[in-house]
This record gives sequence, C-alpha cells and structure tokens, in this order.
Amino acid sequence: MCRILFLFGVLIFYLNAFAQSGLHAKPERMESRILALGMFGLNPQGGVSRIAFSEADKQGRAYVTGLMKSAGLVVRIDGAGNIIGKRAGKNPLLQVIAFGSHIDSVPFGGNYDGDVGVIGAIECIELLNEAGITTEHSLEVIVFSDEEGGLTGSTAMIGRLKENNLNQTSSSGKTVRDGLSELGGDLAKLPNAVRQKGELFAFLELHIEQGAILYNSKIDIGVVEGIVGIEQWDVTIEGKANHAGTTPMNLRNDAMLAAAKLTIAVNESVKSMPGAQVGTVGRIKAEPGAPNVIPGKVTMSVELRDLSRDKILSVFEKIKQRAAEIEKESGTHIDFTLAHSNLPAITDKKIQMLIAAAAKELGLSYKMMPSGAGHDTQDLAVIAPVGMIFVPSKDGISHSPDEYSSPKDMANGVTVLLRTILALDKQE
Amino acid sequence: MCRILFLFGVLIFYLNAFAQSGLHAKPERMESRILALGMFGLNPQGGVSRIAFSEADKQGRAYVTGLMKSAGLVVRIDGAGNIIGKRAGKNPLLQVIAFGSHIDSVPFGGNYDGDVGVIGAIECIELLNEAGITTEHSLEVIVFSDEEGGLTGSTAMIGRLKENNLNQTSSSGKTVRDGLSELGGDLAKLPNAVRQKGELFAFLELHIEQGAILYNSKIDIGVVEGIVGIEQWDVTIEGKANHAGTTPMNLRNDAMLAAAKLTIAVNESVKSMPGAQVGTVGRIKAEPGAPNVIPGKVTMSVELRDLSRDKILSVFEKIKQRAAEIEKESGTHIDFTLAHSNLPAITDKKIQMLIAAAAKELGLSYKMMPSGAGHDTQDLAVIAPVGMIFVPSKDGISHSPDEYSSPKDMANGVTVLLRTILALDKQE
Repeated sequence: MCRILFLFGVLIFYLNAFAQSGLHAKPERMESRILALGMFGLNPQGGVSRIAFSEADKQGRAYVTGLMKSAGLVVRIDGAGNIIGKRAGKNPLLQVIAFGSHIDSVPFGGNYDGDVGVIGAIECIELLNEAGITTEHSLEVIVFSDEEGGLTGSTAMIGRLKENNLNQTSSSGKTVRDGLSELGGDLAKLPNAVRQKGELFAFLELHIEQGAILYNSKIDIGVVEGIVGIEQWDVTIEGKANHAGTTPMNLRNDAMLAAAKLTIAVNESVKSMPGAQVGTVGRIKAEPGAPNVIPGKVTMSVELRDLSRDKILSVFEKIKQRAAEIEKESGTHIDFTLAHSNLPAITDKKIQMLIAAAAKELGLSYKMMPSGAGHDTQDLAVIAPVGMIFVPSKDGISHSPDEYSSPKDMANGVTVLLRTILALDKQE
Repeated sequence: MCRILFLFGVLIFYLNAFAQSGLHAKPERMESRILALGMFGLNPQGGVSRIAFSEADKQGRAYVTGLMKSAGLVVRIDGAGNIIGKRAGKNPLLQVIAFGSHIDSVPFGGNYDGDVGVIGAIECIELLNEAGITTEHSLEVIVFSDEEGGLTGSTAMIGRLKENNLNQTSSSGKTVRDGLSELGGDLAKLPNAVRQKGELFAFLELHIEQGAILYNSKIDIGVVEGIVGIEQWDVTIEGKANHAGTTPMNLRNDAMLAAAKLTIAVNESVKSMPGAQVGTVGRIKAEPGAPNVIPGKVTMSVELRDLSRDKILSVFEKIKQRAAEIEKESGTHIDFTLAHSNLPAITDKKIQMLIAAAAKELGLSYKMMPSGAGHDTQDLAVIAPVGMIFVPSKDGISHSPDEYSSPKDMANGVTVLLRTILALDKQE
C-alpha cells in the first residue's frame, strides 16, 4: 500500500513537472486582452487616457474584474480600491504569493504601462488552470488603484496613505478621497487595506521597461535589481536683474548664466562616476523673463536617481561644490531646497536569481538592471521580499500612445513570472 | 561812425562771451522741478508710474507745458502728441536746433529717466532768458510722446510710425492710436508731425546713464558715441522628451542641456572679442517643464548689442559655430529666427567733440561711451546730426524707483548741453 502510494506520489510529481515545463504564456491571448482593455479610454492618438477615478478607469476595472472572476479568482476590493483576486493554495497556513500591477494610465498614455503586468498576472492564473496546477501557497492577483497619481493603492496597502494624500486633487479633477470611494474603496475601512510585514511571502510585478535598454540591446528580460531612489531639489539662483543693453558684461550678476553653468554641472557630476545614476534639470524659470533684461532670479529643478542613496548624495556633493564656484564666478547666490525624496527599494536577491534562472531555462537573454521609474513594488518592498521583471518596450517609450511591446515579449515576461512564482512556491 | 559801430560790436561780443562763460545750470531749480514732476504718478515705492497715455502722464505733460510757457516758449502739440516749445532765433532762415527727451515712465519707474532731459532742456531756456541771450538759430524743446512704449513720438517725427504701431496696446491698456488722441495728438494730422531730413540743424538729448559706468568711475559726463544696434533671436532647441529616471545619460537628447551650453556660448562669444558689445539670454522655457521629464524642447531669446553691426554679426557667427557643435554633442536641432533688429545710430562726430570741449572747459571729467539702451535720439539720427550727453545714475539703476542722479550731476549735464547748443549756434 505504502509502495503504491509512493509510486502514485512520484507519478504526480513528474506529471506536475511535465505540466510546468510546458507552461508558456499565449502571446495571442495576451495581445487580444491588452487591446480589449485599451478600448476603455481609447483616445484619437491611438493610445489611452484611462486616468485613475475616471469613467474609463471604472470600465477598465470592470473588464479586468470579469477576467479575474472567469479565471476562478475570488475577487474583493479593499478599502483603498485595490482589486484583489485570490486563488487558494493547498496549504492555507502558508503566506500568500502576490503579483500584479495597475491599469490606470497617465493622460494620453499607452496600452502597455501597467496593463501588461495585470493582464500578465491573469494569464498566469489561466495557465495554472489549464495545467491543473494548484500551488502550495495561495496566490493573489492585485490591481493597484491610482498608480500614476502617486502609488495610492500600494501606499495604502503598507499603511502610509495620509490625510494630505487623500486631499490631493488627481488628474481626474476629483480628490483622491472621492476617487477611491468611486472605485468601491471604503475610506472607513482603509486600515483594513493594510497588509502587515510578513503577511506576503513575496510580491512580483511584470512591467514594460521605460528606457530603451532592453529594446536597443535586443535582450528579452530585465531582472530588476531595485527601484531607484529619487532626490529632487528646488534650486533658486539670485543674481541682479539689470538692463541687457547698458550693463557691461563684467558688471553683471546674471542668474541665467549661473543656471546654465549649474545645468552643465549636474550633467557632468552625474557622468563623472561609473554607474547607472541619472540627473536631470527638467524645469526652469528665468525672471523677469524678457529678452532685454538680465535675469535676476532663476528657479530650476535638479533631480538625481540611483539604486544607492550614497551614490546620489555623493553626486549631489559634487554639484554643491561646483555651485559654490559658480556663485563666486557669477556673483549670485544659489540655494538648494529638498523638494522630494524617495528611498531606493532593493529587490530580493533570491527572487532576482529565480527570475534569472527562469529566463535562462527558457533560453531567454536577460540583464540585471535598475528601474529608473517608480512602481507599486517599491511600496510592497517595505513589507515583503519583492521582485520585478521587465520586458522590452519599443524605443523605450512609455507614457505615450507610442508605447508598444510585442506579443512575444509580453508572453516571455509572463512565462518568466509564472515560473518564478512556481519556483517560490517550492520554497519554505 | 563805422568805428563806433565796430566798437559797439566788440562790446556786444565780449558781453555775450562774459554772459556765456557765467552760464551754469542751477542744481536746486533742477531738483525741485524733478521732484515736482515726480508728484504726477508718484507710487508708494517712492518712484513713479507715469505710463504713457495715463492720467499721470497727462498731468505731467500739463505741468511741463506750464514751465515751457512760463519760460517764454511758444508751445504746440504735433499730430503724434509730441510737445514742442519754440524760442525764435535772430535768423529765421537758419535751421532749428532741437533738444529734449520724454517724461513718460515704465510702470514702477523712477524720477530721472527722461525727466532730466526735459527739465534740463527747459533749464537751458531759463538760463538763456536770464543771461539775455538770443541765439542765431531758433531753438526747440521737444517732449516726445510714449518713449517707453517704443519711441512712438520720435518714430512719428521721422515718418516711420505704421498702422501696426498704432494698433498696439500700450501698458496703459489703451491702443497707441487712442492714447495719442488723448494726449492732444491728431491722427489725421500725423503726417504734419514729420520733420524732413535737413530741417533740424541738430538734435541733442541729455539723459541719465543706464549702466554704472560713469557712477562707478566717478566721471561727470558721458559723451555718447552712438546708440547700439540690437539684434534679437528666438531660438528653438528640439531634442527628445523622455523619462528622467529610465533614460540613461548616454541615450538622451536633452534640449535643456543644449540650452545651457548655448547660454554659455553666448556669454563666451561676446567676451571673446575686445569691445563694449553685450549679449544676453533673458527668456527661457523648457517643455514639458516637469522635474521628472527630460526637456524635449527649449525656447530661449538671444540678444546682442553693439555700436557696430559688423561686430554683432561676427559675435553671432561665433555663436552659430558653437551651436552647430552643441547640436552634434547633444543630438538636438537648434534653430535661430531673427525676432528684432535695430540698426546702430551713430552720433555726429563734430557734436561729440563740442560736448567733450564743453565738459573740458567746465573742468568736468568725461568719457566716450555707447548708449546700450534705445532713445528717441536714435530716431532723430535718421534726419539730423545728433548728440547725447549722459550724467551719472546711482549704481547705474534705471527703470526703478531707486533711480537717482544728484542735483550737481544733473546741473553739470545741463550746463554742458547749453554750452554745446551755443557752440553749435556759432557754426554755419
């Protein structure tokens, strides 16, 4: 009897292994669902404006909820409007393995940012259903609310959504507070949306890359090492406004000239060290702003990003040193005020290795890389081991109607995601 | 009889010479009239907002007209609202010697820009009256309309005021057309305001300097060599807007970085040649203008000024060369569109020498210098030999409530102006 049971167990194991080795996402199903979701908020440019809390967002969420239910998930909406679909595992005592992304878009965005991670998560469930696999851990597909507006759903999930976040007016014109209610969130139950540290065994997110790193190098999979930290400063340069005709060059305190030198200093300081750190001056205003007046004041932004906060701070130190020289050269005063600070979120090393192993097993090329943009995963990293998988995006474009990831690339990402989930499921 | 007449003639000549050598402007009268004029449009900052066509402008003009009439001038207002006060000379066949300036101000301007030239011109008449001198040439004191709005009165006087100038809305909120009518101008008689080439023997303007050149060097008198030409370009830099986090430094087409380099190129190109030329980037706009987006487009102004148009063009040539290099370095496209072009106006060499001689005779220090700002004199240069006299302005400030020229400095300028007029009067 024991022997029969043992042989039966071995048979099940091999059947399972066989089923898993055959698990491949279906490119056609991915694409048709991506395009179907793209109908909600379709704009004339061919992209999508599915701004969080808008009618299109609500319709898109209804479509996705339908897919989740059809796939057998038990769907609930938490107090922060996150859609959570659960697939029970064999062992209810094990922590949940969660994965997902978002379906809201920026105004005039595309069909892939966020959507690939949500449709891809549902594809994983479909494949498990088709292969008849039940995991040990329960699984959860999560569709986060209002990612583009500031990671609202995931911030709530880690208990960090504050009054001032709720009071902000979103791109939809509604406050986040009103918007969440419309999505079925229940602000009275916001605390119930919070997941405790240790509650999740892991969180995984599949996403399109947002630079052209994979696309340009024709690499299939990005294994995300972490989500960069962001430090952003408001810089004020005070010089002296003066007549552009009558003030000799050597008697000027030209705030615009100082701003130009500082812009170059940002670029050069960033590039002076090895690594993937980036730095940008994206906003500038010269006052009074007339062609015939030497600017007396310039305000500008300086943003630095890297996986290492120490790296960011040492680049900033270089910029500050150069700023002190520029002050002397130009007779201006330069002031830096920290406007925004996001700590880097490092993904779990073990999960990185599982993702890389899954890619390798599938014969896909892969590359370790940072995520330069923010994602819900960075919030989840506070309470759980996290991993992120990137797939190529044409020309690295995101937040644009021109976003495009091929069905094959998307399917590759989903297959890697599913295999990573299954590999995690085997761990204690 | 002939001998008696001859001796009488000699006596008159010496009396005249004695009277002239004693001609000195009265600092107290200058200052009290400057301050009285400053009451019209006085603003809480202690300066003046006597915008052309405003109630304050009309009141100021009435005050000045009163002074002119008291000084015995025959006053008329031409079709363009210029106030012209005439003092008949001995020989009505000789061309008129004209001098003057303006009394309108920029919003929140000061009490000296323009005013010193008008009150100073009237002071010349007072001094001639007191000394009992009648010049050979008839004299005209001219108060130009709407100088700050674009040299409206003097442009009309040389026959170059166009329909589009009249249709422009001035700082007063009125169109120039409506404004001129309110000043007593008669648009139907605009052609009558035009003075023909050769009609004036000379035109002279006394004005405060607008840089700190005289003030810083403690020099009494500026002998203006000319009014600089101005070439102004609208520059458009096209790069590629991209995500500031996900786009590696070496894959950027950063229009803001290119704009920074171009701003420095303008400064360095201007300073690379000897001379008093100046160059300024006063206006800049980066698009889309968010801290987390690499600017895809920057528009900015480039303005160059010099007495020599060739110098301006050779500086511009250097800037263009550098721009071509920046295009390559940054993968952007830089386009220059000429937005505004004023030819330099050179003052009459003979008048320059007479001004310098008058200063020297009075024991005043003087300096040959360009005017970096525009003045009505540049228009008059089209139809007559012109001269300009600058007096020091505290810290070089103009267009500000902080404008200040001392009574002594103003009086020095008036005395030099009057002696130059008298020296011109002796010439054929």
